[in-house]
Formats: sequence, structure tokens, C-alpha cells
Amino acid sequence: MSRLAPFPSSFLFALGAMAPFAASAEEAPAYRTVNEIVAASAPTDWRQPDPEHTLYLELASGRVVIELAPWLAPKHDINIRALVREGYFDGLAILRSQDNYVVQWGDPEADDEAKARPFKTAKAKLDGEFTVPWRDDMPFTRLPDDDGYASVVGVSDGFWVGRDPKAHEIWMAHCYGTVGVARGNETDSGNGAQLYVVTGHAPRHLDRNITLVGRVLSGIELLSTMPRGAPPMGFYEKPEQRTAIKAMRVAADVPEAERTALDVLRTDTATFAEIVEAKRNRRDPWTKLPSGHIELCNVPLPVRATPTTADTP
Amino acid sequence: MSRLAPFPSSFLFALGAMAPFAASAEEAPAYRTVNEIVAASAPTDWRQPDPEHTLYLELASGRVVIELAPWLAPKHDINIRALVREGYFDGLAILRSQDNYVVQWGDPEADDEAKARPFKTAKAKLDGEFTVPWRDDMPFTRLPDDDGYASVVGVSDGFWVGRDPKAHEIWMAHCYGTVGVARGNETDSGNGAQLYVVTGHAPRHLDRNITLVGRVLSGIELLSTMPRGAPPMGFYEKPEQRTAIKAMRVAADVPEAERTALDVLRTDTATFAEIVEAKRNRRDPWTKLPSGHIELCNVPLPVRATPTTADTP
Repeated sequence: MSRLAPFPSSFLFALGAMAPFAASAEEAPAYRTVNEIVAASAPTDWRQPDPEHTLYLELASGRVVIELAPWLAPKHDINIRALVREGYFDGLAILRSQDNYVVQWGDPEADDEAKARPFKTAKAKLDGEFTVPWRDDMPFTRLPDDDGYASVVGVSDGFWVGRDPKAHEIWMAHCYGTVGVARGNETDSGNGAQLYVVTGHAPRHLDRNITLVGRVLSGIELLSTMPRGAPPMGFYEKPEQRTAIKAMRVAADVPEAERTALDVLRTDTATFAEIVEAKRNRRDPWTKLPSGHIELCNVPLPVRATPTTADTP
Repeated sequence: MSRLAPFPSSFLFALGAMAPFAASAEEAPAYRTVNEIVAASAPTDWRQPDPEHTLYLELASGRVVIELAPWLAPKHDINIRALVREGYFDGLAILRSQDNYVVQWGDPEADDEAKARPFKTAKAKLDGEFTVPWRDDMPFTRLPDDDGYASVVGVSDGFWVGRDPKAHEIWMAHCYGTVGVARGNETDSGNGAQLYVVTGHAPRHLDRNITLVGRVLSGIELLSTMPRGAPPMGFYEKPEQRTAIKAMRVAADVPEAERTALDVLRTDTATFAEIVEAKRNRRDPWTKLPSGHIELCNVPLPVRATPTTADTP
């Protein structure tokens, strides 16, 4: 079934199969779509996530791979890896799925001091890392457009971020697939024992109000399709509704043959800049009006299975 | 289980149960959350969708209610209702579910001229209504903040819109839950026979490139949880993966006792203005830093089941 026939069943912008406009010698280079740029990328355009800062959320349905950004939430990165390594999450559950918002997981008994699972080495309380101080050695690629929730936006080695140059702060933005630390009203009430992932339109109003620790690289669909829980917040009310977490693991603790080999596109390259512009001003045959703008959470951060050819470095 | 205990299992901003800050006589009125404002609203804050411009997508799992905005896509509104009334969609299927993007439905055989379901009274081709000319009699409530994809943004009687005052154009924006008309590369290749709904972060780059016709008022979760289809675009490759559409109907053609009675919040009221500001600058105990900004697709457009008390007008 042809996806690209002009018949109404075909849909959307050109993917790899569409030919770019032919460029004359005097014109700019031919337009390439995001997928074309990715398909033509070099091995050096990609990096492999650090297994020490990569988590696996293991469900019966499969594995969710989460990459942590330790420079953006260092204390939570440490504490969450401690929780994972003490087996805190093993046998806990998916607690909540709210449409156009988040999926959340942790201890169903967390509110019951008698039944709540205790912490061993992990800290029970942690000051929020809603923002962290900006350091000049942090990776940062600025994006070209203004943003309503941050005076400066960009990408920090594969994570969408906002920055406040005056306050010298940086923080992750709540784009789709980002993972954060659930908390109560007190700013130190989230220690990483309950985590959430954004599964709807980016709730940017949460930026700088809660600690974000990373993003899902693969397996997001295992969470985003979770049946929705009870209104208004989507918490499951019956135990049988809560999908069990088999385990959470740090990738470095998993035998290499059992890890999920992923590449993440580097975001400090000309390739990445071309990708941003390719979506910012789409010039494929399907698009009739390029936007001239790209909002932060619309910036693609491609991930692929690591190629397994013999000549891959 | 208390959702609002400061214990880590509770999460997020105050809902109706949180007390607003007490205001002294000299201060501004006490802050109310979106949910508090909605709970305290008057019957006159709400309107009932016009059954002639409301569609039901009937699945085995339940009903998806779609409200059309005829002033924003008049020809497609007519043609889609014609398609629905000629039973075009009955027995067709959900064709596609792409994570963080769209769910799409229509004729699985649309690309096969021999097997494709023919149109009867509905037009096979329709000029795109990617934007429509702005008329002064169109409902419009401007939003307070700038937007990267439109020089002016607002809400038009319950639909998120962009406007270009210089070109005198208005168009719907691709916020979560909005419904559009799939097309090929030709601008007249979408006639409404294939429809999609946004089920992820708002793909605003599609604004003004494709006709949007309405939005889902209820039942979105029946679509947003659809298993994802095959990469890269999420089309289902096997017939058994395609959820059947029992029927699509115009609400006006359904006996009143079988309709879904919904209220949509009016967007030309002080109540709505307060809701926008309540999310734009959240001042509940959970929020530590109000945003001072609200992006278009972050603006709530509340829907509720019509109350059934005896004194409801």
C-alpha cells in the first residue's frame, strides 16, 4: 500500500522516500527532511548513552530505556540510581495514567507509613533540583527562536533545556518523554521514589517547579498507551489496574549482551543544526507554508538502534 | 489514600481540594485553581455543542465525541457530515497510531481504486481550508502572550486558533485532541474521508498546512491509547490490528436519549479569562514559580457532562 500516493489515504510530510527539490549550482543545498538527514548521517553524528546513567524500567510488556542527565539533576541522579540498585522499584507498579499529561510509577502503598516500602541507602528527602547553576562547561546548543517559558532555550547534549542567563540557571523542559520526580507541596518531598513521564502536550508550566532527571529513549509507547486511570488525576483506584514493575535496573549492571544498544544523535553538530532547520522550515512537497519557527519541544532528538554492521566503530 | 499529603506519593498542583490563599481586604481576590473556578462556575458559563455539528465516532470500546467548528472549515464541515450521513465511515477502521503524533482513521482500501469505498453525495475533492478569511462576526478571545507560529493567538468559541491580522486569516491550531483532514501532497487531496486526531505534543508546524475541522470533547482516551502501528508513521500493517469503526453519526441524527450530553465552557466570559490566568500564573501551594506565560495549546478548554439536576436550564 503506497503511503505517498496523492490519494487521500496517504498522509503527511515527506519521509525518506520523497525526493528533495533539485538545487541548481547557484541555489542553496537541496532541502533534506529530518528523516533524510538522519538516514544520511555519519557514525560520528551519534553517541551511545552512558550505561551508568541509563535506566531500564522492565515491564511484562517490554523495556523502557531512560537516559539520565546527571549534570542537570546531580543529586537526584545519584539517589535514583541508589534506589534502583537497592531494588526499591522491583515489584512496585504503574500508579497513574492521565490522558494528555503523565504516567507515574512507584509504591502503591507510599501513603501508608506502615506498608510503605522503606529506603535503604537512598535518601528519603532531597532538596529539589528544579534548576541548577549554569556552568560554562555544560553542553549547550542554542535554538534560534524565542520561548515563552524561558529567556533562552536550547539542547544540552540530547536534553531540551531552558536557561536564565541573568540568574545563571539551567533546567530541563517538560517535553514529551521527559522523566521527572513526583513531589508533594514541599520542595524536598520528592526523592526519586516516584517518577513520572510526560505523555501528552508538554506541560511547560511545570518547568522550574519540579526536578526533571532524564528522558525516555525507547519504549515510551509501553507507557503512553497505558489505560487511563480515574479522573481527575488518572490514579488507578483498584490494585488490579496497576501494571507491575518487574524491575528497574541501571544499564551498567546488566550484562552487556542483555542491554539495549541505542544511539542518540549528538546535538553539537552541523547535522543537528540542519535537522532543527529542516523542521523549522519544512520545504518538502507536502508542506505549503514553512513555519519559520520551531518551539523547544518540537525539536527532534533522534534515537536509533545501534547499527550492527561490521564496520560500525 | 490522600492525594495531597506532602508524602512523595502525592503529586502535582492543587486541585479543587486545596484551599486558596486567604486574601485580605486590600489584596487581589484569592487565587483559584482552574478546577476550583470550573467547580464554582454558573450554568451561563457553559454552552451545549450544536448536535448538527457534533459527530460521534462509535467504537466497540465506546464513543468519541467530536465538535466541529463550521466557521473555521465550512466546506469540510459540510462534506464530512455528508460522508457521515451516507454511512461512509461505517465498518471502516482505525488505520494508524503514531506515538507522540496522531491517530488516523478511514478506509483501509483507500489506495486501491478497485476496492476503495466510493463516495455517494460527498465530494471526492475539496479545496483545502488551511486558513479561512477572518470575519468580524467570528467569535474570538485573544490570549495575552506571543506565539511563535502565529502573530495573534486566541480561542474562538472553544477552539484554539491563530490569526494573521495583515492577511485577515484565521485557522485552528494543532493542539491536543484537534481533528483534521488527512491529505496527500495536493492541497485538494483531502476531502474528509480520512481524519486524524492529535494525540501527542501539539505539532504546530502543521498549522496552515492542512485543514482542521474540530476537536474531541470526550472519549479521546479511546484513541490516544491505541497500540502504536509500524514505524515510521504508525500505520497498522495487518488487518487484524485495525480497530473497526462501528459507525460515525451526526449527533442530530441520534435519538436525543442516546446522545452524550456535554457542556463546553464558553470562552467569551470573565470565567474563562480567570481560567487562563489561573494556569498562566499558578499560585497554588504546590507551585513555586508561576510561569507568567501560557502557550496556546496549554490553555484549558473544559468540558463536562451536562449536569442533570432539576434546576439546570
